[in-house]
Amino acid sequence: MTITGNNLIGNTLSATGSEIFAAVNPSTGALLPGQFHLVTVAEATAVTAKATAAFKLYNKKSIEDRAVFLETIAEEILAAGDELLDRAMAESGLPAARLTGERGRTMMQLKMFAQLLREGSWVDARIDTAIPDRQPLPKPDLRSMLTPLGPVMVFGASNFPFAYSAAGGDTASALAAGCPVIVKAHPLHPGTDEMVGQAIISAAKKTNMPDGVFSLVFSNETTAIQLVKDPAIKAIGFTGSRKGGMAIFDAAVNRAEPIPVYAEMSAVNPVILLPGAVAANAAGIAQGFAASVCMGVGQFCTNPGLVFMVDDDNTKIFLRSLSENIEKITPATMLSKGIYTACNNGVEQLKAAATLATESKAIPDTGKTEAVPHIFSVAQKDFMANKSLSQEVFGPVSLVVLCKNTDEICEALQGLEGQLTATVHANADDEAYLSPVIDLMKEKAGRVLFGGFPTGVEVCDAMVHGGPFPATTDSRTTSVGTAAILRFVRPVAYQNFPQPLLPEALKDNNPLKILRIVNGSYSRETV
Amino acid sequence: MTITGNNLIGNTLSATGSEIFAAVNPSTGALLPGQFHLVTVAEATAVTAKATAAFKLYNKKSIEDRAVFLETIAEEILAAGDELLDRAMAESGLPAARLTGERGRTMMQLKMFAQLLREGSWVDARIDTAIPDRQPLPKPDLRSMLTPLGPVMVFGASNFPFAYSAAGGDTASALAAGCPVIVKAHPLHPGTDEMVGQAIISAAKKTNMPDGVFSLVFSNETTAIQLVKDPAIKAIGFTGSRKGGMAIFDAAVNRAEPIPVYAEMSAVNPVILLPGAVAANAAGIAQGFAASVCMGVGQFCTNPGLVFMVDDDNTKIFLRSLSENIEKITPATMLSKGIYTACNNGVEQLKAAATLATESKAIPDTGKTEAVPHIFSVAQKDFMANKSLSQEVFGPVSLVVLCKNTDEICEALQGLEGQLTATVHANADDEAYLSPVIDLMKEKAGRVLFGGFPTGVEVCDAMVHGGPFPATTDSRTTSVGTAAILRFVRPVAYQNFPQPLLPEALKDNNPLKILRIVNGSYSRETV
Repeated sequence: MTITGNNLIGNTLSATGSEIFAAVNPSTGALLPGQFHLVTVAEATAVTAKATAAFKLYNKKSIEDRAVFLETIAEEILAAGDELLDRAMAESGLPAARLTGERGRTMMQLKMFAQLLREGSWVDARIDTAIPDRQPLPKPDLRSMLTPLGPVMVFGASNFPFAYSAAGGDTASALAAGCPVIVKAHPLHPGTDEMVGQAIISAAKKTNMPDGVFSLVFSNETTAIQLVKDPAIKAIGFTGSRKGGMAIFDAAVNRAEPIPVYAEMSAVNPVILLPGAVAANAAGIAQGFAASVCMGVGQFCTNPGLVFMVDDDNTKIFLRSLSENIEKITPATMLSKGIYTACNNGVEQLKAAATLATESKAIPDTGKTEAVPHIFSVAQKDFMANKSLSQEVFGPVSLVVLCKNTDEICEALQGLEGQLTATVHANADDEAYLSPVIDLMKEKAGRVLFGGFPTGVEVCDAMVHGGPFPATTDSRTTSVGTAAILRFVRPVAYQNFPQPLLPEALKDNNPLKILRIVNGSYSRETV
Repeated sequence: MTITGNNLIGNTLSATGSEIFAAVNPSTGALLPGQFHLVTVAEATAVTAKATAAFKLYNKKSIEDRAVFLETIAEEILAAGDELLDRAMAESGLPAARLTGERGRTMMQLKMFAQLLREGSWVDARIDTAIPDRQPLPKPDLRSMLTPLGPVMVFGASNFPFAYSAAGGDTASALAAGCPVIVKAHPLHPGTDEMVGQAIISAAKKTNMPDGVFSLVFSNETTAIQLVKDPAIKAIGFTGSRKGGMAIFDAAVNRAEPIPVYAEMSAVNPVILLPGAVAANAAGIAQGFAASVCMGVGQFCTNPGLVFMVDDDNTKIFLRSLSENIEKITPATMLSKGIYTACNNGVEQLKAAATLATESKAIPDTGKTEAVPHIFSVAQKDFMANKSLSQEVFGPVSLVVLCKNTDEICEALQGLEGQLTATVHANADDEAYLSPVIDLMKEKAGRVLFGGFPTGVEVCDAMVHGGPFPATTDSRTTSVGTAAILRFVRPVAYQNFPQPLLPEALKDNNPLKILRIVNGSYSRETV
């Protein structure tokens, strides 16, 4: 597979623009092969026109055809082989094992949505049959199901070159829903995105999908916002910074026709360690916490950036054990110089406002972008007085907030913004405090954990990777798991439609054998 | 029941403000008894504080308690008796039969949500059990379900003093979801709203619901927007004008924490009459259409304001028959002088731009607010050239767009904004044209009808009362039917939670006997 540096305008390679950029290897600082052409305004207009035309055709495809398309994308990504993994490693600085696993997860997500389509019940089919002789008025026949919104624009993430990028969860769920997708390639891994994009186009051609069902562009911010504002775009998926997400959200909701934005932006993922749990297992919790905060050089949106605990003798054991674990960690390459610099700036700000509890071994400054893990501590009253301490530092950095008692823990939790996750460690001795803590965790987060740590986002039906603002711009949804498909659909009701004109999902004989609500009862039966 | 003119700040009557207003009888222009005190800034702050406190308590109530609360509201509304109906008639000008029916629908909606709660499966419970020995990493136990957003603010409609007002669909679905509700009383029927609000408070007291689970305020626009911007408010329900809805939407999405807005704003509800259907039954369709466009003095959001048909000999029969039907209609009182004036202004603008096809018998100008039904016609090319012709005129007014062929019909449909409904009349002779027409109807509307007319919104599982912007600000939802509850919830996932700490809906033994997705399969079984 050749990296062309061209925009993929549906099935057409296009590079009419004169502005170009190259990718950088964060481990070496060297430029990587490939010159990527920024999409022009005219090309961007062609992209949305193709997506609009493709939407009508894509929706005429059978569910089985759509499922095969998704599975073929997974096959084509695998077929790109080591060449794709090598490029992703070079662009991201992430190790081979991690990227191999992430590629597997990406393929699994595509196959999961194919399976969801074949099972079919996700369309929420509802049937209320007519009662012609009802008094005072006849009851009409009404049937409803979910239908795709239209072309979706996806902004991939820096930290997951596969699973949250060109063929990631947003793309997979939007294509599964029946929506054409336009991906803005991430500037930190444009070659990886192009190769994955080519794999998707190849799958689209092999499965006879319409030209325009998928496009991928290299874009600066101005043209990206132009695309967000294009009337053809009906929803946005985004994973990245709060600043970037809010720029897109503001543009999207202030359009003549506002559209939904699913931006996953930032979280500090509080971990609450209640006294009984710490007394019972301070060293074990410290070990697990150190591993979680340093996993992937702390570059996960579920990274635990805040710990709340009662300051007692066991806290000292916890912090000492945490030190022992953190000190052993080998610094590792971050995704980019910019992310590395931002992480260091965050550390410097924490040094000014909090106490350094521990850091991992320093390394000689080789000019490499290798982040040193840092843990800080601060008294609850100082934490409460300084809003900036509750902001995310993207990297292997966390802040332990020392509280006088569990009331102070609850006060601090109540003051937090929305989060992707919230975790509590508790045992039988903590029972008296637990209920208000869990209530606050539910109020603040999309996923609550009892024990363990928030890094590691299982892909399954029950996953909620989302949460109240600013964790995301739409707490009603998840970007991971089968329910992610629900972001890209809306319900349509059919009143008194003849059987031949109804979609398969709503016909009397239930040819798809899906679960439906029929006259108030769940059923897979014929009406 | 006494109309106090006080704001209902939870269980407390409050009238500290000095600004007051009275309701007007639109049939006579006379002021009605009751002086309504506009809520002050301090009172508005007290309202949201009470709602926030009530949210935590309301969520601790059992599902059965919540269901009984909803049913008790219905009983209390009925107990308000003829006094309530009389006040609603006086404030709205709507006839007794209509309001009696609407009250019944309002009570039925409350009971429907009580039934939905008891069945319980609507919470979308999902369970993925742990696989501790999975390689390379253990799979955690993950369980998710829908949970309420928090306090909801509801703006009722002028045209449904019961079913879309203080105890209407928005209030019923938000309370059912577990969200406290703050209603802004409608200035055209404040007495009706207060009486219904008192019925809700009475029900809340009888069923031991927390103070603040329901509040009702009389408010000007400034204070209403202050409430929309209050961080305590987590979602908005609105039914009314596009201008009003967009003011609320803009305020809500530009908050520090943006919140969802479910504003149902405007629609012209196109009716497409294909040539075969008109040839077969021009007179019958004309009769049905005349009844639909004049029903309730045209004051329904589903009123059919646009007709598209091919201009042939049968069109003349249709228009002549329409004339015969329209001419028989007796003008009737509109909801207010302002609505009447706006309707007349719309008619004048149509007179300038289109041809008057027919109007009902004129009436001597008695100063009453009685609207005269008007039907206009216009050539498709003139319709396409004048965007204002596709805007809603709220009242018994419709515009017939005469097309050269079905291509022109499709072109006109493609140019329309989003709609609540779209209707087609077709028979076997129209088969060749039908598919693209239905595709466009689905693209543009939340509910598509085959035959019949869009007025009359059935309350059931399959109803979709919603649609693409500007019909609503959130096409992913419906404001009528059981699915309306989904507007006020978000999913929360529980990872590795001990059984006793899980919500009932997610416990292994499934005490609520609800349908769940367990390890990929739908089941009511114990895990």
